[in-house]
Amino acid sequence: MAIKAAILGFGTVGEGVYRTIQSHKKELETLLGKKVEVAAILIQNKQKDRNIEDNVLVTTDYNEIINLSQLDIVVDAIVGKDPAFSYLKKAIERGCHIITANKEMFAHHGKALLALAKEHSVSVGFEATVAGGIPIIQTLRQLLKVNRVQQIQGIVNGTSNFILTEMREKKQSFPEALKLAQEKGFAEADPTNDVEGFDAFYKLMILSRVAFGAEPDWNKVERVGITSITSELIEVANKLDFRFKHVVSIHKDGDRLIGSVRPVLVGNSHPFFHVEGVENAVNVYSDIVGRITLQGPGAGMFPTASAVIEDLVYAGNRNQQDKHLDKPVTDAFPLTNGSLHDFYLLNGVNKRDLSASISITEQVADQTFIVETVHEEILRLIQENSSIRYYPILDGTQTLLNRKKRKTVTV
Amino acid sequence: MAIKAAILGFGTVGEGVYRTIQSHKKELETLLGKKVEVAAILIQNKQKDRNIEDNVLVTTDYNEIINLSQLDIVVDAIVGKDPAFSYLKKAIERGCHIITANKEMFAHHGKALLALAKEHSVSVGFEATVAGGIPIIQTLRQLLKVNRVQQIQGIVNGTSNFILTEMREKKQSFPEALKLAQEKGFAEADPTNDVEGFDAFYKLMILSRVAFGAEPDWNKVERVGITSITSELIEVANKLDFRFKHVVSIHKDGDRLIGSVRPVLVGNSHPFFHVEGVENAVNVYSDIVGRITLQGPGAGMFPTASAVIEDLVYAGNRNQQDKHLDKPVTDAFPLTNGSLHDFYLLNGVNKRDLSASISITEQVADQTFIVETVHEEILRLIQENSSIRYYPILDGTQTLLNRKKRKTVTV
Repeated sequence: MAIKAAILGFGTVGEGVYRTIQSHKKELETLLGKKVEVAAILIQNKQKDRNIEDNVLVTTDYNEIINLSQLDIVVDAIVGKDPAFSYLKKAIERGCHIITANKEMFAHHGKALLALAKEHSVSVGFEATVAGGIPIIQTLRQLLKVNRVQQIQGIVNGTSNFILTEMREKKQSFPEALKLAQEKGFAEADPTNDVEGFDAFYKLMILSRVAFGAEPDWNKVERVGITSITSELIEVANKLDFRFKHVVSIHKDGDRLIGSVRPVLVGNSHPFFHVEGVENAVNVYSDIVGRITLQGPGAGMFPTASAVIEDLVYAGNRNQQDKHLDKPVTDAFPLTNGSLHDFYLLNGVNKRDLSASISITEQVADQTFIVETVHEEILRLIQENSSIRYYPILDGTQTLLNRKKRKTVTV
Repeated sequence: MAIKAAILGFGTVGEGVYRTIQSHKKELETLLGKKVEVAAILIQNKQKDRNIEDNVLVTTDYNEIINLSQLDIVVDAIVGKDPAFSYLKKAIERGCHIITANKEMFAHHGKALLALAKEHSVSVGFEATVAGGIPIIQTLRQLLKVNRVQQIQGIVNGTSNFILTEMREKKQSFPEALKLAQEKGFAEADPTNDVEGFDAFYKLMILSRVAFGAEPDWNKVERVGITSITSELIEVANKLDFRFKHVVSIHKDGDRLIGSVRPVLVGNSHPFFHVEGVENAVNVYSDIVGRITLQGPGAGMFPTASAVIEDLVYAGNRNQQDKHLDKPVTDAFPLTNGSLHDFYLLNGVNKRDLSASISITEQVADQTFIVETVHEEILRLIQENSSIRYYPILDGTQTLLNRKKRKTVTV
C-alpha cells in the first residue's frame, strides 16, 4: 500500500514538492518501504495549466481532500495564517502527519499544532519554515539533544541579505537594490515582510521554540529592518572591514529569553561575514560543542522542497519518531561566547548626546561613531532620541582594538 | 536500571566524554529515561592521577571490562587500528552498542564493524571520527536521506588548516608555523599524519561510505600534504585574493568514486575561504537542496565529546534506530556544481613544458602560472615532470576572468 500525500498550494514550494516526489520515487520507496503518491493538490485557480498527472485530484475545495478515503500526510505550502491553520488542525484530527513550510502560520500556531499532534500520535515537520534547505530544525531537534543551546544567531531572510550584498558590492542605493531583488523574484511587490524583519521575526520564534522550548515575549523582541541602512553607512562599514548583516539573535538571560531582529555589523572572522546574496546561515552556540555554523540556500523551489521531502521520510518512518522533540528545559547558564560585543556603530548622533558611560572609540563619519559601552546604555540613549540608529558589532573587537592602538601610536 | 558505559582510553577524547557524562547527567536521564553511568575506563598507565570517581572500574585489562555483569555501550577513545578493532568486535558480540572517535581504525574496519553490528542488532556511532563536533555524519545519515549526494568537500584536518592560516596571516614559514602548532598542542611531535594528509584521507573514506555507500579505490586516491606550500606561494595566492586550503573531495564519475586529498586554492566566494585556524568545514552538494556548508570546531576535548555524547543518546534510544543507515545506492548523475574548476595554479614549471592544450591565463611569479585546462592535461603534465606542483582553484573563475579582461584592456 502506498503512502498518500496531499499538497496544499501549488506555488514555488508546492510545485517543488510535487516535482521532487515525482523525480525521487525510487529513493522514497527504498527509504519508506512503500511508494509515496501525491493523491491531491489544493489550488486557488482552476484555469491555470500546471502539468500535474491526471490521477491527482486537483481541487479548490479542501473538503474534497480531507474526505479522501486514504490520506496519510498533508503538506502545507500556502502562505499566511489562515486558512492553513484550520486545514492542518483537521488533518491532524483525521490522523495525518503534517509538514509545513508556512512560517507565519507556524510561528503563531506551532505550539497548538504540536500539542494536537501529540494527542493524535502524528508528527509535525517544519524544517522548511526556517532557512529553506538548511537542516537547522532537525539539527537542533535530533543532533544536538544533549548540548544545551546558549545562543542562536541567524541570517534567515535571503531578500534582506541580497539587498545588503548588492548595496555593498555594486554601490547601489537601497531602492535600487530592492528593485533588482524584485526583478529577480527575491522580493515581493510589497517588500515590507522581508525588509522590515517580520519574516525573520517569525523564523526567530520557531527557532526559539525548538532550541529553548519556549519563546521570548513577542512584544519585547526588538525588530528593526534594513531600511535605515544608507549607502553612506555601507561605505563606513566597508572602510572598517565590517559588513552589515540582518541578524536574528536569541539567548537566555537568567530565566528570560532575549530576542532581537536587526541589522548588525560583523567582523571578518565571523562566519556571517561571507554569507552573501540569498544565502542563509545559522550559528548555534552550545555548551559542549561550542559554535557550529550551518550555511546554505535559504529559499527557492528545490531547497525548500528538500526540507519538506526529508521531513516526509521522517514522518513516514513513524517508528523512528522522537519521543523528545522539545529539548529538556534546563537551567540558564552564562553565555560565554558569541554574545554581542559591547562595540556599536552609532549613526545620527551628536557627540554631546553621549553620556560619560559611552566611550567613543572613533568618529567614522558625520554624526557617526564607533563606541564602546553596555547594551543598557545604548537602549537609554535610543529612548531619549529615537532618531539615533545603532548597530552592534559582532566579532569586531580585535579589529577595533588594533585601530585604537594604531591611532594611539600615530598621535 | 542505569545504562552502563565503558570508555576505552583516557586521553583528551576519553576524558572529555567522561567529564561530559558527569556534567550532563540530568540531560541524559531526561533524554534516555534512565541514568547513564560510566562503569569502567580502560587506561594504559595505572600510576597517573586522573580524578575519576571511586565507583568506576579503572583498569589496564580489557577483559575485566568486557566481562562486567552489565555493559551496554562501549566508547572507543583510543588511537590506532589495534587493539581497538578487536575490542569493539568483542563488545558488539556481547551485545553492546559501540561509539568510536577512532578514524584510522574506522576507516579500515568500519565496514566490518557495521556488518557485525547489524547481525547483533546494535548500533555503531562514529560521528566523532570526522570533523569533531560538527554533526556531518548524522546530517548525512539522518537529515539528507532523500537527497542524492553529488560531491563532498571538506577541511577536515585542523592542524593543516592552522598551519596554512598562520603562514598567511603572520607570514611564517612552514617550519615556523608547524613549530607553533606543536607548541599549542595542535600537532604531534611527528606531524606526518596531519601534514601529509593521512588523517584527512581516513576521514574522506568514512565520509564516502556514509554519503555514497562505498569507497573509492584507496590506491587511486591522490593524497598530497601541505609540505610543498612555500611562503612564496602563499604570497602569490594572497595577491590574487585566493587562499590555500587543504581539502578532501569526493564525487561520483559514472560508476566510479573519485577522491582526492590535496591543497587547493579557494576564491573568496567559496565557503572555505574564511575557515581559519583549527576550524573544520564540510560542503555537501546534493541534487535537491544544492550546497550546504557545516562549519565548526574540528577537534578538542569537548567538541569531540559532544559528538560521542550525541551518539550515545542516539544509541540509547534504540527504538529510533535507523533501518537505513546506508543511503540507497542510486544511479550516478552529472555533477553540475561544486566541481573543481578548470583553472589551476602551477608551480615549478617552465612555459615551454606546457602543451598547447594548457592555456596560460597569467604568469604570477617565477615558474608559477595560472592556467586553464582540463584535469587530464594536468595529470599528463605531472606524469612527465613530477616536480611540478599543481593546485586546483575553487570558486575563482569570476576573479580570473575579470583579471583576464582587465589585462586585455590594459594591453
